[in-house]
Amino acid sequence: MNDTHVAAPGTLDAYRRVTVVGAGVIGSSWTALFLAKGLTVTVTDPMPGVEQLVHEQLRQAVPTLHALGLPTADLERNLRFEADLGKAVADADVVQENGPERLDVKQDLFARIEGAARPDALLLSSTSGIRATDIAQALKQPERLVIGHPFNPPHLIPLVEVVPGEKTDREVVERAVAFYTALGKKPQVLRKEVPGFVANRLQAALFREAVNLVVEGVVTESELDGIVTSSVGLRWAVAGPFRSFHLGGGTGGLPHFLEHLGPGLEGLWRDLGAPVFDEATVRLLSGQAQFGASIEELEAARDKAQIKVLQAVSEPSAATGEPAQQRDASEA
Amino acid sequence: MNDTHVAAPGTLDAYRRVTVVGAGVIGSSWTALFLAKGLTVTVTDPMPGVEQLVHEQLRQAVPTLHALGLPTADLERNLRFEADLGKAVADADVVQENGPERLDVKQDLFARIEGAARPDALLLSSTSGIRATDIAQALKQPERLVIGHPFNPPHLIPLVEVVPGEKTDREVVERAVAFYTALGKKPQVLRKEVPGFVANRLQAALFREAVNLVVEGVVTESELDGIVTSSVGLRWAVAGPFRSFHLGGGTGGLPHFLEHLGPGLEGLWRDLGAPVFDEATVRLLSGQAQFGASIEELEAARDKAQIKVLQAVSEPSAATGEPAQQRDASEA
Repeated sequence: MNDTHVAAPGTLDAYRRVTVVGAGVIGSSWTALFLAKGLTVTVTDPMPGVEQLVHEQLRQAVPTLHALGLPTADLERNLRFEADLGKAVADADVVQENGPERLDVKQDLFARIEGAARPDALLLSSTSGIRATDIAQALKQPERLVIGHPFNPPHLIPLVEVVPGEKTDREVVERAVAFYTALGKKPQVLRKEVPGFVANRLQAALFREAVNLVVEGVVTESELDGIVTSSVGLRWAVAGPFRSFHLGGGTGGLPHFLEHLGPGLEGLWRDLGAPVFDEATVRLLSGQAQFGASIEELEAARDKAQIKVLQAVSEPSAATGEPAQQRDASEA
Repeated sequence: MNDTHVAAPGTLDAYRRVTVVGAGVIGSSWTALFLAKGLTVTVTDPMPGVEQLVHEQLRQAVPTLHALGLPTADLERNLRFEADLGKAVADADVVQENGPERLDVKQDLFARIEGAARPDALLLSSTSGIRATDIAQALKQPERLVIGHPFNPPHLIPLVEVVPGEKTDREVVERAVAFYTALGKKPQVLRKEVPGFVANRLQAALFREAVNLVVEGVVTESELDGIVTSSVGLRWAVAGPFRSFHLGGGTGGLPHFLEHLGPGLEGLWRDLGAPVFDEATVRLLSGQAQFGASIEELEAARDKAQIKVLQAVSEPSAATGEPAQQRDASEA
């Protein structure tokens, strides 16, 4: 095993030099986090004016990084730009790719990355919808590639879905998990490649019924949002759906819950709507999208609230020394 | 209008005497909140030993009430028990019913309540699944009844879904909203009666896909829960699904989001699973329901975390004086 892998567990020692390929919103957010964690970052993107765009995105990320307790002074000290993809990745410990969501583009990018990067560099793609198995068909060593899909924005929201392809090496998956964990993220390895991975599928499932309820005139968009933030959203910030229903089953837990409330749930499942985005639906949904403030104001308010909630769930409990948010049994 | 309605807006002055009909988990939790808010509560339930059960539930609610900043000293000072339903409701300003979830039982209860309560008493049902229209068929004045369905437990989670039946008087709806608002809850009036109302339908929609992903072996229950609490759960604690996607659309907001990501969402909708609770599925789900601690320990940890999150979202922001959680435009 290469020397660069020999690093204390839980540290970023083996991952000092990161190359960010593609500097849109996701790539810039990764860049902000990597820099705030003390890593050296090379950004590569053929887009004209990319340096200005990244500077601007970093500037916008500073208040959030600061609120999360990360150092932000002289954030760009370890940042450089390199338009040539081969040169940009030649020296990298980690490559985090955030290019356009097209299979042919990703295959081309990773074929060139593979040809120029060190053989032990960790190759990660932020894609939200393309399988590692498919991208890796363009690689000589398909076992090197793994998906590291962040929930947007990566400098704020903890989840990274780590999704191996059919040929991804187990050691690559382990290194990806080690890297993201040392970075303070919450990586979760998926056991199968499915379209949309897990978080976006769950989000899509809830949103489908949300659209149905607005189309049916049961509530407006704002009313539905208020229902979510005052009930299920609060719940799911601290306990996921299975744990919540486990605790909803009294001393009998989830088995008791399923036995007694399963039939009622199945009844609701049969009644859920199946809307489509036809012209009338899009017009209705777009027309209701008035949230009483500009996008910038809403975004600033949301980020401020999000940071408070993140602090609340990650605060160690006085009683146990554990974060307030419940850990999986596997971590206990 | 009766004198008891003449009270300062936003106060509980018109709702001093509350009768809780049915003292199971929901009824006891309502009782705890009503008492902590200084109301006089009469509990009526024919179940033998109900007094002991309520005492025990109140005792368990005290740490939560305390953490929410509510007074808990001598909580039972204004609590009394009255087995006779007619006597229990005779003097009430508000009746909150929490009996068994059977239409015939609710119809019988409300027919008796209507016959014994003052003509101006507010008649509320906590039902999660029965329509006010159906219950009210047993009433002489069906316009008096409205659903006030809490998200469990009502002493902790803010949402109350206020669901009028076809004949419910608008003024009854307004008084229900005024009562719950003065109580510190977040009431939301639904514009149509639909099975499961809104929060439980959204919960069912997400849970269906959660079950599908576990059945398909993509993740375990614990892994799925961890994904939710580190991504969508955090998001939906501060911004509902429409506002989140509005902000996910950049400067173009939700219309831009729907135009560009709508087709992808529709693709995911088509791919979502439709599991059923057959024997094999129930066995799989029940078998995985191991969360590394006892129900009591999990519950205590969840409640502690839930309180921290509630405090985080209700803390006034230094900048705006508004709660951190974003308000609906209609409230802004």
